[in-house]
Amino acid sequence: RINSDRLWDSLMDMAKIGPGIAGGNNRQTLTDEDKEGRDLFKSWCDAAGMTMGVDKMGTMFATRPGTDPDALPVYVGSHLDTQPTGGKYDGVLGVLSALEVVRSMNDLGIKTRHPIVVTNWANEEGARFAPAMLASGVFAGQLSLDYAYSRKDPEGKTYGDELKRIGWLGDEDVGARKMHAYFEYHIEQGPILEAEDRQIGVVTHCQGLWWLEFTLTGREAHTGSTPMTMRVNAGLAMSRIIEMVQDVAMSEQPGAVGGVGQVLFSPNSRNVLPGKVVFTVDIRTPDLDKLNRMRARIESEAARICEEIGVGCSVEAVGHFDPVTFDPTLVGRVRSAAEKLGYSHMDIISGAGHDACWAAKVAPATMIMCPCVGGLSHNEAEDISKEWAGAGADVLFHAVLETAEI
Amino acid sequence: RINSDRLWDSLMDMAKIGPGIAGGNNRQTLTDEDKEGRDLFKSWCDAAGMTMGVDKMGTMFATRPGTDPDALPVYVGSHLDTQPTGGKYDGVLGVLSALEVVRSMNDLGIKTRHPIVVTNWANEEGARFAPAMLASGVFAGQLSLDYAYSRKDPEGKTYGDELKRIGWLGDEDVGARKMHAYFEYHIEQGPILEAEDRQIGVVTHCQGLWWLEFTLTGREAHTGSTPMTMRVNAGLAMSRIIEMVQDVAMSEQPGAVGGVGQVLFSPNSRNVLPGKVVFTVDIRTPDLDKLNRMRARIESEAARICEEIGVGCSVEAVGHFDPVTFDPTLVGRVRSAAEKLGYSHMDIISGAGHDACWAAKVAPATMIMCPCVGGLSHNEAEDISKEWAGAGADVLFHAVLETAEI
Ligand SMILES: NC(=O)NCCC(=O)O
Ligand SMILES: NC(=O)NCCC(=O)O
Repeated sequence: RINSDRLWDSLMDMAKIGPGIAGGNNRQTLTDEDKEGRDLFKSWCDAAGMTMGVDKMGTMFATRPGTDPDALPVYVGSHLDTQPTGGKYDGVLGVLSALEVVRSMNDLGIKTRHPIVVTNWANEEGARFAPAMLASGVFAGQLSLDYAYSRKDPEGKTYGDELKRIGWLGDEDVGARKMHAYFEYHIEQGPILEAEDRQIGVVTHCQGLWWLEFTLTGREAHTGSTPMTMRVNAGLAMSRIIEMVQDVAMSEQPGAVGGVGQVLFSPNSRNVLPGKVVFTVDIRTPDLDKLNRMRARIESEAARICEEIGVGCSVEAVGHFDPVTFDPTLVGRVRSAAEKLGYSHMDIISGAGHDACWAAKVAPATMIMCPCVGGLSHNEAEDISKEWAGAGADVLFHAVLETAEI
Repeated sequence: RINSDRLWDSLMDMAKIGPGIAGGNNRQTLTDEDKEGRDLFKSWCDAAGMTMGVDKMGTMFATRPGTDPDALPVYVGSHLDTQPTGGKYDGVLGVLSALEVVRSMNDLGIKTRHPIVVTNWANEEGARFAPAMLASGVFAGQLSLDYAYSRKDPEGKTYGDELKRIGWLGDEDVGARKMHAYFEYHIEQGPILEAEDRQIGVVTHCQGLWWLEFTLTGREAHTGSTPMTMRVNAGLAMSRIIEMVQDVAMSEQPGAVGGVGQVLFSPNSRNVLPGKVVFTVDIRTPDLDKLNRMRARIESEAARICEEIGVGCSVEAVGHFDPVTFDPTLVGRVRSAAEKLGYSHMDIISGAGHDACWAAKVAPATMIMCPCVGGLSHNEAEDISKEWAGAGADVLFHAVLETAEI
């Protein structure tokens, strides 16, 4: 078993960096806080005897050598970046549990044939720089480095410039590493495990996603002196699209979600009808056909809504991944580790995207989940217990040991 | 007749301060640009032989003395602050035409019994600090000075602090001045005069207004892993309220408007359902009963919508004025000045609120309007012709002369 007290202490130490306003964290990608978190994580990896490699996206790879010089490494990781009002565990639990796996191997004097690489993927959240899972997307050859470098935050700063600024631009080519396997341990970020009273989620699939960024162009005009019939109201069109997305998602139940988290009115003044409204629709389902059907329905319905009001409508896909089926052998090892350790478990589908979804494109990959209170995530009130954290880390430990071969 | 070339040149000179990004202006209240605009205006008033008084709200009063020491002044003015993406004429035309009236009196050696006070009201727009017409509201005893000083911009800076910072905090008690009459010349900011092909709007009334700031409280949660049935989606509630406001306004036609110009999602991240949504509903009509009925309908419908989704809903009235009937004697003078000068004219109702609406509480007041292209205002593309500008300034000149008594 791993040392769940040590794991918990590390989680609490990391949470001191970039504290939120309500008990969570604001440690967004490539901010000063991200840099501070990376520095702390590196010091822990150094202390555990690992050597750090960094690639040109800023992803951190800490290696514990194996006994066989020809054996490819087993990668174990997640991300340390957070949402602007994020929790203490989303991503962080996976990285620090991977570290705890290595620390436990050190304690127990365990040597493995395959090296172990504890991984902190850059920009998983995509809150500051869309899309999410950016570095793992480049790693898996799904996105280009130039595209990634040119991604802008809301202030117009680019990923490339900010990566240099915080001093974590590495020299390794992105995706040059070959993986024997990839494991990621994460909180569920949904309500199912808690509702079903299971300690471990054996993750068999991940939902696919589209992020559709709409730009609606209306006519900026005075709210008082512009008669109703003369308005070209982009905000009204946006409202109808949000309602329509809700309808589309409801009509595709079960197993589909759709919603809008980000909205920007321009000029955003109380007495000005917006000339421009930008917002992003997030749709997901584990079924590829359904996913693409939802996208098509939403785009054509939105075009119709905008035409009716006379509002201009353009759509850009700013994030996408297909539904993923994880590697059956690794999934089996997670399930039997939970079984052997006596933890209650069930198979589940990941509702959120993870770096494991991109890793699965280039290596056998899978995930382990633990419950989170009320299914809450992307919320500073996100919460788990030390016991939940430890149970998943134990399962990770055993599944990794079996894969890395003692 | 006034000198319309000189008026136009002054308009263009003022427009150089706080240029927008699309030909208009961004000279918001109590910014460095506002200060620069005030300094320029003061230099022009000095050159025209006027003496400047400033009150504790930062309103500027430039006096041209009259011949009768006991006669109350005729106030003529508007505002120099703009929307974030405002036009060059909204407000500015009224202040600089008032200045042009004095310059023309100087040219012609005209003396009046009543003094003339050219006035630049502070914070008319209310874009940076809600509500609009803040300084004239305090002047008319409708709002308290403490309330005004405590108003915050989106960054949390207060009106009081920013007024001190730009160096335009005056020493006059607000509202201490007594007015013989108040005139305000303004662009229509609506489409009617242009559509009816009239040079002059004789303004008989002004619509009343409510600004209702809604704060909706949902549950911040992950857009991917939160099933549709477990969402408490404040953004969806907002969408339904925007649609409902549209319906209420349409059902109260003719003579009513309603819409939303400002929306703030929190945390405003693509994969987070908003925990909080703040937005302001702007409703207006010249009919007091209708205005209050619309407010009541919107508040009760919004409460019902939010209850249905489980979203918390609170409403604060952040701006209000009752419909206004302008002084019939002054209105008659405007009408006969237009007649005498041979300008086409019609009676109209002001769709927007103006400082004249508050001034009307404490003095006989009225307004003059000129057309604007396409009815566009609160838009950098706001436009008028030199001829339109000059015609209204001529009417202002004659109506003021008649009231100030030669
Ligand atoms: N796990 C997680 O929150 N990832 C961010 C990408 C997503 O929205 O699914
Ligand atoms: N004239 C004008 O735009 N005033 C601002 C207050 C309002 O929205 O009516």
